[in-house]
Amino acid sequence: MHQIPIGIFGLGTIGTGVMRVLEKNGALIRRRLGAEIAVRKIVDLDITTDRGISIAPGLLSTGADDILKDPEIQIVVELIGGTGASRDVVRQALAAGKHVVTANKALLAEHGEELYTLAQQHQRRIAFEASIGGGIPIVQAIREGLAANRIESIYGIVNGTANYILTQMTEAGAPFEAVLKEAMAHGYAEADPSYDIEGIDSAHKLAVLASLAFGTPVALDQVYTEGISRITPVDIDYARSFGYKIKLLGITKLVNGQVEARVHPTMISEKTLLAQVDGVLNAIYVNGDAVGPSLYYGKGAGALPTASAVISDLIDISRDILHGVVGRVPPAAYLQASREPIAIRNMDDVHCRYFLRFGTVDEPGVLSRIAGVLAQHQISIASVIQKGRRADGPVPIVMITHRAMERNVKNALQETDSLEITRDKTVLIRIEDWRHEDGK
Amino acid sequence: MHQIPIGIFGLGTIGTGVMRVLEKNGALIRRRLGAEIAVRKIVDLDITTDRGISIAPGLLSTGADDILKDPEIQIVVELIGGTGASRDVVRQALAAGKHVVTANKALLAEHGEELYTLAQQHQRRIAFEASIGGGIPIVQAIREGLAANRIESIYGIVNGTANYILTQMTEAGAPFEAVLKEAMAHGYAEADPSYDIEGIDSAHKLAVLASLAFGTPVALDQVYTEGISRITPVDIDYARSFGYKIKLLGITKLVNGQVEARVHPTMISEKTLLAQVDGVLNAIYVNGDAVGPSLYYGKGAGALPTASAVISDLIDISRDILHGVVGRVPPAAYLQASREPIAIRNMDDVHCRYFLRFGTVDEPGVLSRIAGVLAQHQISIASVIQKGRRADGPVPIVMITHRAMERNVKNALQETDSLEITRDKTVLIRIEDWRHEDGK
Repeated sequence: MHQIPIGIFGLGTIGTGVMRVLEKNGALIRRRLGAEIAVRKIVDLDITTDRGISIAPGLLSTGADDILKDPEIQIVVELIGGTGASRDVVRQALAAGKHVVTANKALLAEHGEELYTLAQQHQRRIAFEASIGGGIPIVQAIREGLAANRIESIYGIVNGTANYILTQMTEAGAPFEAVLKEAMAHGYAEADPSYDIEGIDSAHKLAVLASLAFGTPVALDQVYTEGISRITPVDIDYARSFGYKIKLLGITKLVNGQVEARVHPTMISEKTLLAQVDGVLNAIYVNGDAVGPSLYYGKGAGALPTASAVISDLIDISRDILHGVVGRVPPAAYLQASREPIAIRNMDDVHCRYFLRFGTVDEPGVLSRIAGVLAQHQISIASVIQKGRRADGPVPIVMITHRAMERNVKNALQETDSLEITRDKTVLIRIEDWRHEDGK
Repeated sequence: MHQIPIGIFGLGTIGTGVMRVLEKNGALIRRRLGAEIAVRKIVDLDITTDRGISIAPGLLSTGADDILKDPEIQIVVELIGGTGASRDVVRQALAAGKHVVTANKALLAEHGEELYTLAQQHQRRIAFEASIGGGIPIVQAIREGLAANRIESIYGIVNGTANYILTQMTEAGAPFEAVLKEAMAHGYAEADPSYDIEGIDSAHKLAVLASLAFGTPVALDQVYTEGISRITPVDIDYARSFGYKIKLLGITKLVNGQVEARVHPTMISEKTLLAQVDGVLNAIYVNGDAVGPSLYYGKGAGALPTASAVISDLIDISRDILHGVVGRVPPAAYLQASREPIAIRNMDDVHCRYFLRFGTVDEPGVLSRIAGVLAQHQISIASVIQKGRRADGPVPIVMITHRAMERNVKNALQETDSLEITRDKTVLIRIEDWRHEDGK
């Protein structure tokens, strides 16, 4: 049986998962591939901790060169994370004529263009199915399955931690801080959860998705990013009363020849499939001009789902190696030479509907003053809720607007927030609506 | 720009859709593929009807040899349908050294083994993404995206017509016949709808899915097949009262070393994502041992979604042609030599929970007699509903059983149906439950 020798950098959760799945399903993979994926070396700084798997003697090393300078190793799996050592390893591996598989969305979001170009120069592959949506084969779906389509829009729940927290807040009515603490206790949130809850991890993934979908480089700082830490049970309740759920979405669309790329808490109809995606699960909703709406759902993180994606890349590259082919599918979905810069839309120019919750004093005429300011900024109101008076603090006036321009909304809120009737800064949550014939 | 010359058999709805998408997105496809997919000939019996698309003079022909004997044409798209002429065309195309793309699930379900082997003999590809789930890239997901996984089970809504009818019956409370008539008026059901409503089309697709998932030939007559024509609004209402929806599912699982393959109306929890898939939309829920639960959703039919899948296959094969590679991915997911016959489980041996609606006279002791018969056949009851007396006709006793064996249930119903207290044949609907941590 032909062997494909590989080396793995990083024996953490995912690395251990890859070893377990290769061990468990090795025979099955051979029946599909016609060859064996053979781990020749695993490099990690820590080679003494027991990971609960049996590892052949001599397989572990702390020396990067044991992989990078081994001429037999054909594929390098980068599971180090971050953008420092991981970037060096990927560059050196490609330069040494090795193919690369990575699960590292931060690396791709920040240095993807450099690495795609480097891979092409060295006629080697860089594959990253595991970097978005864990085990969901979304990269292949966009790059190959939907290759006949002009992609129109993508809406993704791509961070399980944030989705778990919003789900718990929705189901239990608990405040953000309490749910975050519980998520950390359950291991669903990191000790430093800011990447997940502030939308940064989602922005990494969205930058890669947008780049694949539209064939253009998307820099991380071009992705508008807003997290979930200011979402309250009050707003979740209001959302429900309007028939919405709040999800942290990565959104990218082609609008008037510009690419929108933004991550923020979003109200979506509770009737959509995305609204049903709860807990740590992920889903990516992709609209193409031929296929219409489509959705891809599964576990976005965890040792085994991520290993599933890493190994699918290993199998895919192994097929290329076995057949002596390189460059069959471009890494970023478009031929490098055919990728074209497309302007990324300024967030100020985005149009959508808005949920606004004003915290004003309880006086006659307040609603009319606020409505007046909105009207001056070309913002028209679709519905208003003003609940009964409260003894303790400001009275919420809640509005849903018709489609308006972000710039106008920001200017209007700057004005209303500085009125003497206003006590609390206005809460703004964007709304996305979609209707695709029968699609959800 | 390199050209990949192709020929198309059949200029019906899908063929016209393929021409439209190639026309509209040709430039985009070239940026992804680095070559042009060039239609050289379209063969159809009818070359005079206006399809609403502009076709270059000389492109249309009624002579099959204009494609099959054109040495320049490298890929043949079979959109004839059925299993007669289509089979001849596919065999002749492969024998002539041409690759084949087909959307024909009936052909694959009945002659797949022959055609996979023939493709291998001639070192050519047979690709069929469009045959299941329309535009949903489910074939590639199972064959490549989930290639690291032992597939454990698949539950699919793979017939849009049946799903549309069940959705309308559920939402409007209308009887089957009325909704079918309306579906035919809307063009959602064929003039002869039996393939769709009797589960035959779903069985074709399930046979292919099971074969891909488990690496074993699955003959069509090994798929237990039951349609939706006996589903009534009454049963849909009872399902709702137990928290279920009724869907026509294709189900395949690996159980104790045997493959279950069955198509039948199924009660599933209304909380699952599959239960939310309404109208003509399709979705396939795939469980793998590494990835866990995953779901793929989209339009299962129609000109443009199907064209999306046909063209993704054309692009994929074109990449092989451009790189001079053959046999990179085996058509049926496993190397032909590694496919192994696995026993298909007899329907009698299937275990699940059952919804049973008995139509009995209204007399004291009826419930106890029925329960007694079930107990004798090792069927235990999880819940019972016996609603108030009815003036007109038999009194429904409705039960949900614990997990029981199909053989025992059939034997028990044979007995209860012949009791003198029984007026109407018992209605039996199988229930599938799944729980995957947080997965739906």
